[in-house]
Amino acid sequence: MSKIILTGDRPTGRLHIGHYVGSLRRRVELQNSGEFDKIYIMIADAQALTDNFDNPEKVRQNIIEVALDYLSAGLDPAKSNLFIQSQISELTELTFFYANLVTVSRLERNPTVKSEIQMRGFERSLPVGFFTYPISQAADITAFKATTVPVGEDQLPMIEQTREIVRKFNSIYDEVLVEPDVLLPENEACLRLPGVDGNAKMSKSLGNAIYLADDSETVRKKIMSAYTDPTHLQVSDPGHVEGNVVFTYLDAFSTKEHFEEYLPDYACLDELKEHYTRGGLGDVKVKKFLVNVMEETLAPLRARRKEFEKDIPGVYEILKAGTEVARETAAQTLAEVKRAMKINYFEDVDLIQSHAKKYESES
Amino acid sequence: MSKIILTGDRPTGRLHIGHYVGSLRRRVELQNSGEFDKIYIMIADAQALTDNFDNPEKVRQNIIEVALDYLSAGLDPAKSNLFIQSQISELTELTFFYANLVTVSRLERNPTVKSEIQMRGFERSLPVGFFTYPISQAADITAFKATTVPVGEDQLPMIEQTREIVRKFNSIYDEVLVEPDVLLPENEACLRLPGVDGNAKMSKSLGNAIYLADDSETVRKKIMSAYTDPTHLQVSDPGHVEGNVVFTYLDAFSTKEHFEEYLPDYACLDELKEHYTRGGLGDVKVKKFLVNVMEETLAPLRARRKEFEKDIPGVYEILKAGTEVARETAAQTLAEVKRAMKINYFEDVDLIQSHAKKYESES
Repeated sequence: MSKIILTGDRPTGRLHIGHYVGSLRRRVELQNSGEFDKIYIMIADAQALTDNFDNPEKVRQNIIEVALDYLSAGLDPAKSNLFIQSQISELTELTFFYANLVTVSRLERNPTVKSEIQMRGFERSLPVGFFTYPISQAADITAFKATTVPVGEDQLPMIEQTREIVRKFNSIYDEVLVEPDVLLPENEACLRLPGVDGNAKMSKSLGNAIYLADDSETVRKKIMSAYTDPTHLQVSDPGHVEGNVVFTYLDAFSTKEHFEEYLPDYACLDELKEHYTRGGLGDVKVKKFLVNVMEETLAPLRARRKEFEKDIPGVYEILKAGTEVARETAAQTLAEVKRAMKINYFEDVDLIQSHAKKYESES
Repeated sequence: MSKIILTGDRPTGRLHIGHYVGSLRRRVELQNSGEFDKIYIMIADAQALTDNFDNPEKVRQNIIEVALDYLSAGLDPAKSNLFIQSQISELTELTFFYANLVTVSRLERNPTVKSEIQMRGFERSLPVGFFTYPISQAADITAFKATTVPVGEDQLPMIEQTREIVRKFNSIYDEVLVEPDVLLPENEACLRLPGVDGNAKMSKSLGNAIYLADDSETVRKKIMSAYTDPTHLQVSDPGHVEGNVVFTYLDAFSTKEHFEEYLPDYACLDELKEHYTRGGLGDVKVKKFLVNVMEETLAPLRARRKEFEKDIPGVYEILKAGTEVARETAAQTLAEVKRAMKINYFEDVDLIQSHAKKYESES
């Protein structure tokens, strides 16, 4: 069986380094591993509209930003199929039919949906489209017969919902859909980076994110003002590395080579942490090292982005071509789904003939 | 503005005389009135699947039956566009986008949905597709820009939901959708015929329905065994016409001409009722009159049905042609909807140009 990846992002803003370590970096590795037959990367604008329906402009303006971030991170249209969710009508049709296979109480029990409802401050005003998005996600995954969905632990209940729908569909109708497996991150520490201000969430609204598209100077300023350890007042004071944003970022980004290049006094991050904890190591020194690490990480992305920014219509063309390919695949799956449900009446010669015979014999 | 009708039925069984007096007879009158520019009659198989998802065969087998009933009742494909809901993908896409405009609590408050949930014995096991069908219904109505939806009082909350979605869509995005008006039945008594056994509901599962396709002898037998007035034991006893199925049917079907032809001793139904109430009029006499009334009503339908039964592939062709026309209209509306939501990115030259310019000025 083919190994097929489906993954993607909601286009509600530029992607930041949290997205990079949380999913994007891995995605590029998977792309280049050669282990997968097909890779579908979806810009999930329709999903973003479920809770931004009154601000479609925000979603619309960010599609190109996410596409540029994808390309700058190293996603290669020749290997990964980039597409826009809302342009594939077949996904909504699958969603519609799958909605019969899920109960309202099952959706209400979904822990991911529960916590997202809380996070977004919905309650009684929960849009139906948002409430039912695990079903729409099942459509996205199954349309491409994805075998592998790279997600964080927090998304496990969503994939379980997809698996349930697949099993139910296949048992009621016919063996058409493929049950996807989850691919969890290798490094749990990288799952979700905090903001530069120490807030657990890195987001545009909190103004605490470092974006992949930020220039060197912006990144430097953000890092130099980052939250570290409020008890670490004097250089000589013992410091804490837990909850210290600078060390969390170093966990996610720094390599042995970075130390050799920029901080040869330390062999590795553990040694640096040890000195900081013991006392006698100032925040500024650590931050300057992080600036170098981030610069080395982000500079190639930034350079690639600049190239793609020169040809915006070309980037739309990439998305359009990817969307066309994705749509063909989704249409193929939808046709199989409708055949399994036997709702392809007009091409169903047996159905028409059986009724014709029935009435012949009656008359 | 054009006057456009949208209406239809769930294909879960043959249509019975309850459907006929409740909607079908009126629909034919509206069709022949010449007052409407377009009439769309939908066989709502996708909606039927929301609570018959595990028995698609039932829905599938009944599409042709409902189509034959439509044609036999006098719906004319040259005047009314007959189509199958599930074959119009655009309806699911509209449903998907409208789902963002309705809250979960709003759906929960819908009285029609509440009572149908109770009727069908769902509770915690309510399928999402069933729960959200008011949204799907809004898609059906608005896809054809229907101005007029002929329904019973019990369906008013459904149409109100559609009107709310239309207002919300038009105010957030653009004036694309048309707010439909309800056309209530003229004769409230005809709204819902009881079964021949006196049960308030006429249904296949209760075995108490008279079908439009029943032959003369079957109709006669059903009427002769119909529930009348259990206190009316002797011919001389005073009888009750309320709750008396035979009189309810006569209310719905008998005309002055029927009396002249088959029961000239009485000028009209009121006189017959008066005699029955007073005492001295036997059930058999009233039933025999009803048999004649029904025969005169149903014979032409039966004859038309026989003709169409001879060419089942031809009936599928009628549905296919109607579906193609309906699909074009729905696709047109969907394109307008997507344009209003500005999610037609690839054809949106301004969007592409504005981003291109933005990056030019930055570099």
